Amino acid sequence: MNILVINCGSSSLKYQLIDMAKEEVLAKGLVERIGIEGSILTQKVEGKDKYVIEQDMNDHKDAIKLVLDALIDKDNGVLKSMDEISAVGHRVVHGGEKYSSSVVIDDEVMKYLEECIKLAPLHNPPNIIGIDACKALMPNTPMTAVFDTAFHQTMPDKAFLYALPYELYKEHNIRKYGFHGTSHKYVSAKVAEVMGKDLSELKIVTCHLGNGSSLTAVKNGKSIDTSMGFTPLEGVAMGTRTGDLDPAVVTFIMEELGYTVEQTNELLNKKSGVLGISGVSSDFRDIETAAANGNVRAQLALDIFQYRVRKYIGSYAAAMGGLDVVVFTAGVGENDPLTRLKACEGLEFLGIEIDTAKNNVRGKIAEVSKEGSKVKVFVIPTDEEMMIAKDTLELVRK
Amino acid sequence: MNILVINCGSSSLKYQLIDMAKEEVLAKGLVERIGIEGSILTQKVEGKDKYVIEQDMNDHKDAIKLVLDALIDKDNGVLKSMDEISAVGHRVVHGGEKYSSSVVIDDEVMKYLEECIKLAPLHNPPNIIGIDACKALMPNTPMTAVFDTAFHQTMPDKAFLYALPYELYKEHNIRKYGFHGTSHKYVSAKVAEVMGKDLSELKIVTCHLGNGSSLTAVKNGKSIDTSMGFTPLEGVAMGTRTGDLDPAVVTFIMEELGYTVEQTNELLNKKSGVLGISGVSSDFRDIETAAANGNVRAQLALDIFQYRVRKYIGSYAAAMGGLDVVVFTAGVGENDPLTRLKACEGLEFLGIEIDTAKNNVRGKIAEVSKEGSKVKVFVIPTDEEMMIAKDTLELVRK
Repeated sequence: MNILVINCGSSSLKYQLIDMAKEEVLAKGLVERIGIEGSILTQKVEGKDKYVIEQDMNDHKDAIKLVLDALIDKDNGVLKSMDEISAVGHRVVHGGEKYSSSVVIDDEVMKYLEECIKLAPLHNPPNIIGIDACKALMPNTPMTAVFDTAFHQTMPDKAFLYALPYELYKEHNIRKYGFHGTSHKYVSAKVAEVMGKDLSELKIVTCHLGNGSSLTAVKNGKSIDTSMGFTPLEGVAMGTRTGDLDPAVVTFIMEELGYTVEQTNELLNKKSGVLGISGVSSDFRDIETAAANGNVRAQLALDIFQYRVRKYIGSYAAAMGGLDVVVFTAGVGENDPLTRLKACEGLEFLGIEIDTAKNNVRGKIAEVSKEGSKVKVFVIPTDEEMMIAKDTLELVRK
Repeated sequence: MNILVINCGSSSLKYQLIDMAKEEVLAKGLVERIGIEGSILTQKVEGKDKYVIEQDMNDHKDAIKLVLDALIDKDNGVLKSMDEISAVGHRVVHGGEKYSSSVVIDDEVMKYLEECIKLAPLHNPPNIIGIDACKALMPNTPMTAVFDTAFHQTMPDKAFLYALPYELYKEHNIRKYGFHGTSHKYVSAKVAEVMGKDLSELKIVTCHLGNGSSLTAVKNGKSIDTSMGFTPLEGVAMGTRTGDLDPAVVTFIMEELGYTVEQTNELLNKKSGVLGISGVSSDFRDIETAAANGNVRAQLALDIFQYRVRKYIGSYAAAMGGLDVVVFTAGVGENDPLTRLKACEGLEFLGIEIDTAKNNVRGKIAEVSKEGSKVKVFVIPTDEEMMIAKDTLELVRK
């Protein structure tokens, strides 16, 4: 059974076609500049040359049409016909409070996704457009929505509520939702599997560190707290996002610097984080290079990032009443030994001991803690597409 | 040597006269409704009846004049003349980045305090007015400024910088300052003294929990991190303040609910916290009573507060690379066994074990951890006035 996984952005679309019998990626691709001059599709298939189509695409329907064409292309594709796609799994950012797991898409789901636009104005609209486009082209293929927020719906109210007037939660849905849920779910389940342990008996902190970063306290297989909040702005410092910040700074900036709401949002989301501190880049590789060359602000950006990750690990150990495993994943978490080492520095009192030799690893499953370290530390490459495909398979089978 | 300690609010003034030879409070008092109809002074002297003066006071100069009159009153006072006051110590909220310790007040200090008004628009102006009034009435008495922020000036940049564009720090002084410094300094020194340990060898988390609350990581006698930030809004949930909050919630409220900057500040500072969650009160005693009577939202407010304190303890243990002592102080910290118990719940993995019998204590120095608990837990009543007086004495002696 082949499942197509779709992740729609406002002008881009990522996809993977996965053979679920073998849990094997048959093809993966990226469509860029949808609705913009210079639209382009790039598809990769194991053992074949990269397949590039440069062709105008007016909208997401055009893009998905081209994706399907690429997948069944005689020379470059992997399928004989569209009928070999059994289901489509869509990544959807915001599922609000209603969805604590993935769902088969029907009219009710679509209606609720529309309602969630207010909570995710940048992300849910392209997700909805992508689903609509797929449905138009594949009217008889079952589709699922897999939410970034769903895994965190197990958080207790003491963790997800802000200390705001309660009415703001009840009437305006202001609360912590958390994001990257598909990734946190995947790596927490995977690390238990790798360790040969029962997930329901583990206290895990999952560190999804990339351009956007979040940490989650996964206790007995359930998210009980996570660092992103109402939006993906809260938490550790990120590529261009502030993370945690005295909320009074927001109003101070507006009052003292005369920023509008829009300018403030742009400042906090696009110009801050390690980019804002370092002045160098939002990419950790650039920042590490600059720091190694003596750039003090670049070093400071790394220090702040690593220090905040370390504090969250301590905070979530306290939230869970203990700690068995720390997992690093995503771009930085998987590929940056220095960040892992520094984030765990000084945490020996918690039983965390990194093995610097074993930690010198990139992009693959590895235990990086010392033999005998009370708390185990793992690198687990995330695979949100596989998680989406697995959820989709399970739903379609029902 | 007698030192007068003054803490000026916008329409109120607290004072204590302390005999430094015996470290004994000779008199303490409160002036309320300064510049408002119904001004009143209340003074307490050990062994004497409460002394109340109801008399119109136009300004802080009138108020301080009356304080001095009360202190030298033949029947109700404790001094023969004003000359027996050797120095005055003023509590000042914000000392910016310039003052990392208390200072003797001169023209340069006064100028800098004016500059800090932008950072503490509600607090520094009455502090300045109080100093000016005192100087006018006691022109030959040395005066000192003791800052709420000073103790935290030892924080490293990775702890005090936000992940904002670096220019906002350099040009607009936006950074974490921290508050309650005098209290955190006092109780951390006091607990070391009580334990008979060297402060410079201890890792302490001080929990100043009151209507305003903050936690500090005190490593080797120095503040290395604290939960309040650029303003006293950041950190754990408080009586009426939100504490930590996704900064995007601030702009969401302005955009979706149409709040102005001023309304937003009022919402976050005056209508949130445990008051906002519970809908009952900002006073923890009222909330605990309501919770005990089955009020779900009151229970939730307590849960959130205690949970956040617990997470900060874990976070600061991680920041210090270990933990030796937890200190509870201030109104709630000193007087509420339940909060202490719940804040430490599940922290046995850190070596924290509360003795429920010993914990049943209020308002006095006590060890409340179990015999043999690896991490010691203490109640240490704070005494900011004594700390201000001690700092003043030290400066005046130089």
